[in-house]
Amino acid sequence: MKIICLLAALFFTVSIHAQDDVVVFRNIANDILLNGKAYENLRVLTKNIGARLPGSPQQLKAEKETARMMKKMGADTVYFQECMVPHWVRGEKETAYTTLADGNKKTLDICALGNSVGTGINGIKAQIVEVGSWKELDELGEKGIKGKIVFYNVHFNQTHIEPWRGYTETTEYRWNGASRAAKYGAIGTMLRSLASNTDDNPHTGGMKYNDSLPKIPCIAVSAVDGDYLSDELRKRKTISIFFRTTCKTLPKVVGHNVIGEIRGSSNPDQYITVGGHLDSWDLAEGAHDDGTGCVQSMELIRVYKKLKIIPKNTIRIVLFADEENGGAGADKYAELAKQKNEKLLFALESDDGGFVPRAFRFNLEEGKIEKFRKWIPLFYPYGVYKFEEGEAGADIEGLKPLGAVIAGLYPDPQRYFDVHHSKSDVFENVNKRELDLGAISMAQLVYLVDKYGIE
Amino acid sequence: MKIICLLAALFFTVSIHAQDDVVVFRNIANDILLNGKAYENLRVLTKNIGARLPGSPQQLKAEKETARMMKKMGADTVYFQECMVPHWVRGEKETAYTTLADGNKKTLDICALGNSVGTGINGIKAQIVEVGSWKELDELGEKGIKGKIVFYNVHFNQTHIEPWRGYTETTEYRWNGASRAAKYGAIGTMLRSLASNTDDNPHTGGMKYNDSLPKIPCIAVSAVDGDYLSDELRKRKTISIFFRTTCKTLPKVVGHNVIGEIRGSSNPDQYITVGGHLDSWDLAEGAHDDGTGCVQSMELIRVYKKLKIIPKNTIRIVLFADEENGGAGADKYAELAKQKNEKLLFALESDDGGFVPRAFRFNLEEGKIEKFRKWIPLFYPYGVYKFEEGEAGADIEGLKPLGAVIAGLYPDPQRYFDVHHSKSDVFENVNKRELDLGAISMAQLVYLVDKYGIE
Repeated sequence: MKIICLLAALFFTVSIHAQDDVVVFRNIANDILLNGKAYENLRVLTKNIGARLPGSPQQLKAEKETARMMKKMGADTVYFQECMVPHWVRGEKETAYTTLADGNKKTLDICALGNSVGTGINGIKAQIVEVGSWKELDELGEKGIKGKIVFYNVHFNQTHIEPWRGYTETTEYRWNGASRAAKYGAIGTMLRSLASNTDDNPHTGGMKYNDSLPKIPCIAVSAVDGDYLSDELRKRKTISIFFRTTCKTLPKVVGHNVIGEIRGSSNPDQYITVGGHLDSWDLAEGAHDDGTGCVQSMELIRVYKKLKIIPKNTIRIVLFADEENGGAGADKYAELAKQKNEKLLFALESDDGGFVPRAFRFNLEEGKIEKFRKWIPLFYPYGVYKFEEGEAGADIEGLKPLGAVIAGLYPDPQRYFDVHHSKSDVFENVNKRELDLGAISMAQLVYLVDKYGIE
Repeated sequence: MKIICLLAALFFTVSIHAQDDVVVFRNIANDILLNGKAYENLRVLTKNIGARLPGSPQQLKAEKETARMMKKMGADTVYFQECMVPHWVRGEKETAYTTLADGNKKTLDICALGNSVGTGINGIKAQIVEVGSWKELDELGEKGIKGKIVFYNVHFNQTHIEPWRGYTETTEYRWNGASRAAKYGAIGTMLRSLASNTDDNPHTGGMKYNDSLPKIPCIAVSAVDGDYLSDELRKRKTISIFFRTTCKTLPKVVGHNVIGEIRGSSNPDQYITVGGHLDSWDLAEGAHDDGTGCVQSMELIRVYKKLKIIPKNTIRIVLFADEENGGAGADKYAELAKQKNEKLLFALESDDGGFVPRAFRFNLEEGKIEKFRKWIPLFYPYGVYKFEEGEAGADIEGLKPLGAVIAGLYPDPQRYFDVHHSKSDVFENVNKRELDLGAISMAQLVYLVDKYGIE
């Protein structure tokens, strides 16, 4: 309620914006809706190239392709920033089953989590023990867990209006579940997929090991099979599962941030960073995560050049490497910016899916957002109605300590965790108009930040 | 901008709502998100029953099934209102082709428009003449049109942020295109599908004939094939198409509005009407149009009974017959209400798809909406941020002259006209959480209207 009242106060004190801002907003929208290339570029990224796992040939292909796209759109400069990225490979298609009461096998829909070790070609088979929290895990202890496979069955809290909260509350089980179970002697873990819906698709995602503990293989299971196993456990008390994964981590390889710039007319050495991440998990096409953020960001170059919007500061579109598996690209970008003592004014990320935009989230204290809120009436006709405090995006968080104001596009969140990191994250699940509206509001916000500054 | 300032003023003068409204809002949301039956009921309507064309066996089946659902949810009364509905049938699958320059045939993705006459079993074949407006049609006149098939190639204006505007601007070509072309001697018409996207699916929808003119068959063509034909016409100047449809209109049959009520505790003879339409076009499953509105409306019964919300006025859930093909159900409901001199306080319709809610639209003069706007802060955490002037819904428009305040749920509109009246309007394209959030905001609004009244 406090936020609403603040918002209201700002509506009230809003200065009538120069008519030319209204016109520029409209021109940006018209041009993207009629001539935008974001959707076609996304088709190329997802359908022609496909999944872009860090270290994969597809990531290198996508780097070249997006550099070509930005040149074609008229970027003044296009270049690469080299960094070393992890190179985890899934190996053969994973298999898993449980044995039914009648002795028959039931196949389970699973996938290895990113960075997991494999089981070896023979797979592993053991009783599963279900836990719903760290507390339940710790209570079972070595006695209840040793030699078994821990099944983390932690559901999204569906009563959150923002599914992000469900994800935030459960991701620690994906990141840390293997090592915390290994501490008690587990031989493997299985995670209920971190998803807002209940379907047959397992959702992958990053995990990490505590190097002081045995590295045990870990998988995600679809929500449907997670429910099935949980029901069976209630009925039969003990059940076993088998799974086999051949994933492994190879030595790091070279990857790149892909950067395209429009040179600033009056302050070419002051930078506005706009980006998404080019890498993705490997089960689908990395459409919403984060092909959409990349093509939306690149669209700024096209529309500014087309409309002859000449920014005062340099607009730097950055397609980050390796957001999904450690953030090597983001680290490299921040490291080089610091090394060169670059003046980073503002950074904007789109990494919450290509859904219809609703808001921008500023990683700023509440009081400091107010000055931006006076712009909301300009955005309102385009469906963006709030600027709120929140996380800006993993790739640009490191720019805040370097002095940048950082913000993230906040699209409608309801469908994101249905597809996130699963085989549903495909081009067909992106709507062209929703994608374009996100690109429009990003181009509009950057236009204002460039024109009026951040002070 | 004016609307925003009004909104801001109201935020400012908002009285802090009784904490119990906040709690009831939360309880409604929690229960629907955790225990809601809207999605499962929609599955039954779409997958078990399917398309519900007025006059079809499926419509009758859906009437029985939804009456059963409302009884099961605890409605105090469930009954039917009989009305006579049109009975148009599509007949055999339509076929159409054009002949290529090399003499080969290219199949076209088409469908008959609702109410169209058929071509007869031999089909019709003629040159097509493309027009982009009534003006172009009239300029061609009899000389340019006689003996030909008129191809209405009127695109949605993609620059509208609200696709509804694109639809509103083009529907007259669907409703009136046949007779206006017949006036100049056309033997058939083909309409570019009224759609916001460009794909292979033809979109059907209602049309009507001027009885004083010859009734000629009319079809819709997919946007992709529409573009193809338009391109070919530019290149080859004259091209012909063949199409064959066996649709026809049979005598009217009996259909029903399905009504479920929760009796009001203090004013049982004052009514709040909440509904959607049970009928649909026949190419898919009538999921977004308007299975979602039906299941969202019915959900009010379930959640009020579950939470023991006892309304002062009678809440009447109405699943209207025949919205798509003339509105016989809406007419009957209004007629009987008038006959019985019923006190209709408020009516709410959901017929814009089961997408994430953004607003309510009140069919009221701007000044009269203000009193409702003081409730917006309650809705804001659930994603509903504006109450605006607009159409409430075809099934309840007739209740305004009877004294009811009428309003419509306004979900996000970006995807609606991709699926509307086409074979894409299926259960799989409805997201459970988006559907539930619409039901939540409807149940919340009705709760406030019942509690605080409309004066």
